[in-house]
Amino acid sequence: MSATNPVNNLQALIRCPSVTPAEGGALSVLEAMLAPLGFKVERVVARAEGTPDVENLYARIGSGGPHLMFAGHTDVVPPGNEADWSHPPFAAEISDGMLFGRGAVDMKGGIACFVAAVARHIEKHGAPEGSISFLITGDEEGPAINGTDKLLQWAAEKGEKWDACLVGEPTNPDVLGDMIKIGRRGSLSGRITVQGVQGHSAYPHLADNPIRGLLQLTHALMDEPFDHGTTNFPPSNLEVTTIDTGNPAVNVIPAKATAAFNIRFNDTWTADSLQSEIIRRLEAAAAEGSLRPGRDPVRYEIVWNERPSHVFLTRNDALIESLSLAVEKITGRRPALSTTGGTSDARFIKDYCPVVEFGLVGQTMHMVDERVSVEDLETLTNIYGSFIANWFAHARSA
Amino acid sequence: MSATNPVNNLQALIRCPSVTPAEGGALSVLEAMLAPLGFKVERVVARAEGTPDVENLYARIGSGGPHLMFAGHTDVVPPGNEADWSHPPFAAEISDGMLFGRGAVDMKGGIACFVAAVARHIEKHGAPEGSISFLITGDEEGPAINGTDKLLQWAAEKGEKWDACLVGEPTNPDVLGDMIKIGRRGSLSGRITVQGVQGHSAYPHLADNPIRGLLQLTHALMDEPFDHGTTNFPPSNLEVTTIDTGNPAVNVIPAKATAAFNIRFNDTWTADSLQSEIIRRLEAAAAEGSLRPGRDPVRYEIVWNERPSHVFLTRNDALIESLSLAVEKITGRRPALSTTGGTSDARFIKDYCPVVEFGLVGQTMHMVDERVSVEDLETLTNIYGSFIANWFAHARSA
Repeated sequence: MSATNPVNNLQALIRCPSVTPAEGGALSVLEAMLAPLGFKVERVVARAEGTPDVENLYARIGSGGPHLMFAGHTDVVPPGNEADWSHPPFAAEISDGMLFGRGAVDMKGGIACFVAAVARHIEKHGAPEGSISFLITGDEEGPAINGTDKLLQWAAEKGEKWDACLVGEPTNPDVLGDMIKIGRRGSLSGRITVQGVQGHSAYPHLADNPIRGLLQLTHALMDEPFDHGTTNFPPSNLEVTTIDTGNPAVNVIPAKATAAFNIRFNDTWTADSLQSEIIRRLEAAAAEGSLRPGRDPVRYEIVWNERPSHVFLTRNDALIESLSLAVEKITGRRPALSTTGGTSDARFIKDYCPVVEFGLVGQTMHMVDERVSVEDLETLTNIYGSFIANWFAHARSA
Repeated sequence: MSATNPVNNLQALIRCPSVTPAEGGALSVLEAMLAPLGFKVERVVARAEGTPDVENLYARIGSGGPHLMFAGHTDVVPPGNEADWSHPPFAAEISDGMLFGRGAVDMKGGIACFVAAVARHIEKHGAPEGSISFLITGDEEGPAINGTDKLLQWAAEKGEKWDACLVGEPTNPDVLGDMIKIGRRGSLSGRITVQGVQGHSAYPHLADNPIRGLLQLTHALMDEPFDHGTTNFPPSNLEVTTIDTGNPAVNVIPAKATAAFNIRFNDTWTADSLQSEIIRRLEAAAAEGSLRPGRDPVRYEIVWNERPSHVFLTRNDALIESLSLAVEKITGRRPALSTTGGTSDARFIKDYCPVVEFGLVGQTMHMVDERVSVEDLETLTNIYGSFIANWFAHARSA
């Protein structure tokens, strides 16, 4: 049964150029691995106005509980300039023990290993005593509107229930076994526009330079830390990601200026309480008036990006311990339990069941020459296999 | 002789859409006013690589001295969003005693009044005992490369000499008679680019947000005054006129960010000494590192705009007094002698003869609904007429 070899699985997946939103053949390749193992495979196309249609896949083996979900995505970010790659990004070539290709670690590699682990489990023990499902999207690297969120809703509506989920995103900073993710910071973005009065730069008293006000407001957002971190989370961090005026005339004071920011926040805050704090800071800074004495309060408006990502922390000791023990058994390392890094689709899954994340080493994700060591693929397959055994043993005994 | 009516003159000029560098028919309209009065009119096209060709006009009546020059420009800044105007910007409509249109005060209005004053003078006294010339450019609001500077060179090369010049730019802050300009601040512009390291906003420790550094550098430029003014000049003032990043992705820390600034400076400084002071401030702020502790110095570069405007002060009592007495006689107000406001083409003229500036009320210049009161046009025409009489009387007796 070829699906037991994670290297073969990954090469087949990488050779499908599934740059978001293209399916690229990747889900068909996955279906061809899972169906022979006994999985019932369903392909679900999600649609939303203003976004491309996206293909997703849901596959389940077994009908009863306990029910373990593996979640991930076959879509990948663009390769950038292909000429910069030492091996073509969709060729899946192996050189000096490294397998090269877009998606090698983020996260076709995780899928390839979990498929191999399940195939080995079935080969050795037969179908699991319970259920295993794959929830795989083609819209994780894109807007994430037609992906995991909708696929979960679709599955839940037809009665699917899960007891736990493992997301196979790359979670290890340096070596396999470093880190399990047991939660994620929230993410909130907004855009501030300061209104001034256009005028000639030689007559500043007749104008009102919105850049002064905008600098004051952005300073108020960046100056004081929002918090100093919590037991499970690093400090919340705000970055102003762009400031734009678009004023081509150096002797004209512009009429308005805008800044956008993104904040990654911990469980000190909810998205709502953080929005209130940001507005409190902006109001205080705006009321001080611009840097020039005798000025009126800064006139600004803020528009929040839709759909903030909510912070979450998984508190399910059996799930975390099943995974930690598997990592420790195979690698000899006790993984750190972390909540660092970007958002992932775990932010949608956490509303349905406890979720943890563990995958490959993330160093080359999104980069030129994304690659994974062949040895890591075998190791991760063994970790996943051990995790499956641990989790079902615990779930059946509970 | 219709040119004696400043309102008619101005309406004809406004109806020519002469947005820099377009001539828009404005110089032809002016030629049609001056030629019948006896002026010899010459049209001079100036060219320079990388800039649009610009039409200019030089007209002289008389051949001997004393020789008075009136200088100005027929080009105007763009109207912006025409829908925001209560009257179309090139229609020259009169409503409630106000004449609306782009260039009404800056400075087709000044030209219209001086033409009317000269026409009335000639109607009453015949040709002047001496010479009057118009030096009118179409490149004052633009790069000013193909305008007054070249026109002066062209005229000087063919032997033209002037004893004094009046520039008709709008000089009055509130009411006609407020203010004569007897000098101008200098103007210096530059663009700062801060280099950072691009990255994901969830991993700020792997990136370096150039916006933090740029905010520090711009703060260093705006925080402390450069000086507190001098006997004849107001304090130097710096405005950051644009900050741009152009980063469309809210979860990406950008690689670089730029800011442009313009400083209007007084005789505390030369352009050179001021550049040194600005660099000293930037170096000090950059060395402090970004707002985040433990960061390297801010990596930036500065590019200075070509051709700073040099500060100057006119010291010619007869010229200043001829104008001041005319203003006082017609308006009852003794005008302030000022050096405030933007640069004007007087910065070029001061190298050829003493120059002063007096025109309309500048409040609406460059704005939507730029407008002038019909009453002010008649008053300014009378002031110009009185000035012409005063100046020639003094110059002939000197």
